[in-house]
Amino acid sequence: MKHLFTKISSFWMRFVARQHPKASSWSPQASVNNDEKKTENGRKQRRVRIVHVKEVLEQEKMMNSSSSSLKMCSSKSKVVEWKTLMETKWLRFSSITYIDPTGEERTWDAATRTTKDPNAVADAVCVFAKLKSSKRETQTLLVRQFRPPMERETIELPAGLIDKGETAEQAALRELKEETGYTGYNAKATPCSMALSPGLSNETVVLVTVDVNLDEYEEDERGGEDKVVPEQELEGSEFITVIKVPLNKMRESLDSLNSSGYKIFAGLYMFALGLELNEAE
Amino acid sequence: MKHLFTKISSFWMRFVARQHPKASSWSPQASVNNDEKKTENGRKQRRVRIVHVKEVLEQEKMMNSSSSSLKMCSSKSKVVEWKTLMETKWLRFSSITYIDPTGEERTWDAATRTTKDPNAVADAVCVFAKLKSSKRETQTLLVRQFRPPMERETIELPAGLIDKGETAEQAALRELKEETGYTGYNAKATPCSMALSPGLSNETVVLVTVDVNLDEYEEDERGGEDKVVPEQELEGSEFITVIKVPLNKMRESLDSLNSSGYKIFAGLYMFALGLELNEAE
Repeated sequence: MKHLFTKISSFWMRFVARQHPKASSWSPQASVNNDEKKTENGRKQRRVRIVHVKEVLEQEKMMNSSSSSLKMCSSKSKVVEWKTLMETKWLRFSSITYIDPTGEERTWDAATRTTKDPNAVADAVCVFAKLKSSKRETQTLLVRQFRPPMERETIELPAGLIDKGETAEQAALRELKEETGYTGYNAKATPCSMALSPGLSNETVVLVTVDVNLDEYEEDERGGEDKVVPEQELEGSEFITVIKVPLNKMRESLDSLNSSGYKIFAGLYMFALGLELNEAE
Repeated sequence: MKHLFTKISSFWMRFVARQHPKASSWSPQASVNNDEKKTENGRKQRRVRIVHVKEVLEQEKMMNSSSSSLKMCSSKSKVVEWKTLMETKWLRFSSITYIDPTGEERTWDAATRTTKDPNAVADAVCVFAKLKSSKRETQTLLVRQFRPPMERETIELPAGLIDKGETAEQAALRELKEETGYTGYNAKATPCSMALSPGLSNETVVLVTVDVNLDEYEEDERGGEDKVVPEQELEGSEFITVIKVPLNKMRESLDSLNSSGYKIFAGLYMFALGLELNEAE
């Protein structure tokens, strides 16, 4: 009976949505308090309206064309104030006041970096270097370093903050050279700046893919006289070990390093998982 | 000449390392101030010792067996104090004092969650749901929600904090049900808790892969009477739209969503990148 009711109700809402596109049935905000009941634990129970990417994009386009000044208006949520609770040279601790889709005012705590150039596409870059060699499978470079917040050494992609005036590609080539000694070519930033921990911070990162011609370098330190020896250029506070790993062994290598007590950067591990999953499917 | 010198010096250090395994040449900490010069910008220039995962693991094993009380002693870095600068119900803002490999005392700012159960494997889980159907390609579920620190809606994997006493798998199945309405089976956590933003926070997340039998559910809301209608169970402050996306279209879907103004979670995007990269190679 419950399902029959939700079905009729849902059908009606879809019908309305088709007649009046702005009263979209697949925006949860448009239907708050409809089709909803409370469970014992006080949570709202609500029939899910599963959407496909195409619908989200169409909705966005429709909303934006009807009122071009409203960006992201599929969400009625809105930040009304950032209040700085504390600030140091590197980080700012804020209480954010925002309006939820029902109009209720709520607060949220956040930690943000003070170092971001407002013109930069992101706070930082991370570098996926494709080390191509005529003699062996494609490898990539990982960096190992002590991270005080983790109280241990981590395994990450080469990475760093974007300096003032730099593009993501420039920052990536600079950081790769400084942290690993290798020179990259064909730097290509992914089209999006990604949120590292969107519930905690506004920190974003751009992934830059670069090629490295491994044939130019000494291999296993036995190369000829014409080969380049990679040299790091680190700041006084940086101590970084470079690890070279074949792409097709990334996941198993990260698992081993994790077992030995190193902490793996989430983006790197999930990248490796994607690589492996595809192989297995 | 420079290269020749570094080569001889490097060979000598490898030789010493082989005779005295503890004086490892591939630990950067063991060789600080050796083989090093300053560049014009004050950075240290140093020949990189590229290592392979096997070497890192062997080094770790050796160090641990020679002194079992020292964990992660390949790094001489050590945190000596966490000083709380400020704390709210959800976040703590700290100044960390640590010793770098040369023995110098340094400080580092960090933001950490106050909500972590000390017994939990991580702060949070994120869920990679494999939606298997007899009729179509494998899909997964993404969630769209307003994130105050980002001041906009994000696209993420279903995720949430691990409640007290929960395993990662239990948290994943609960969060998947609450946020998307789908029931998962065969929950399998990845072996490592991953660092979301190791330079900023100690926040960690475990990825849990679960299977969902899509044949049990209404498909495109036209299913038969015996089909399950997924129902969300959200807290009053949660407003989540569920997006279903075929695995083989993940990267392009995320790019489109990014172009429309949504912010993508880094772990998700890099997972999609791994999936796609493998297809292309």
